[in-house]
Amino acid sequence: MKNDPRWQKALYTTETYNEEGLEGHAFVADGLKVATSSPLNDHPGTNPEQLLGMSLCTCLEATMQAVEKEHGLKHTSKVRAKITYIGERAHYEFLVHAQICVPGVDLDQASQLVAETEKRCCVSQLLSGSENYSVEAVKEWD
Amino acid sequence: MKNDPRWQKALYTTETYNEEGLEGHAFVADGLKVATSSPLNDHPGTNPEQLLGMSLCTCLEATMQAVEKEHGLKHTSKVRAKITYIGERAHYEFLVHAQICVPGVDLDQASQLVAETEKRCCVSQLLSGSENYSVEAVKEWD
Repeated sequence: MKNDPRWQKALYTTETYNEEGLEGHAFVADGLKVATSSPLNDHPGTNPEQLLGMSLCTCLEATMQAVEKEHGLKHTSKVRAKITYIGERAHYEFLVHAQICVPGVDLDQASQLVAETEKRCCVSQLLSGSENYSVEAVKEWD
Repeated sequence: MKNDPRWQKALYTTETYNEEGLEGHAFVADGLKVATSSPLNDHPGTNPEQLLGMSLCTCLEATMQAVEKEHGLKHTSKVRAKITYIGERAHYEFLVHAQICVPGVDLDQASQLVAETEKRCCVSQLLSGSENYSVEAVKEWD
């Protein structure tokens, strides 16, 4: 993968780091630095679940905007993701479920737009091989 | 997936949102809010690539710490990830390559620890179905 020639076709590349673990910091080379902490304590800081969820929501929402535009629709979509941490010692997993609400259209059309978005969103593509990941169109936040 | 009974076994759950797109904000319910912007302009803000990279690095580093401890090793590992955006109109992808440096052991042992970590890290598990994702042990940052 490291020698995949597609790396040479980068439109954009970023490098991120964590050198301290869950109780520490994650940072971007010359960019954002965030404090991190375990999801299982109340120390201040974000965690892998939240960072992944924000990445996914942003990528899905950006893709939805493009899809709405291509269909001649006004932008009304909004995205949320629920990330859950499950498991026990030495075998933990995340469950990831994204919901996309498109108030400007009916649920059938929203489902079609969401299906198109799910295939095109870069983060969604990366997660799509996992049984723990799903996306759905919803009428409103429950 | 939404009805997967494993959702009932949550050790932790978080909800994240983006309602504005790439030029906007991503946020956690009652938590962190970050400005986002396209990776293709110089507007201030983070982006899906960086958020995903920080999530992956933090999860890999936390898992490495646990693995080092279980092997009776001092914690010396550090993690970085390179995320590249490639493609063209209506078909974009991310390439994700993580590197783990473990100065305290030789490269053979580091590779074994990294292989164990790759299987156990929750974010790595989610990405493992993608051909665009890889992890390697390295002697030092190149």
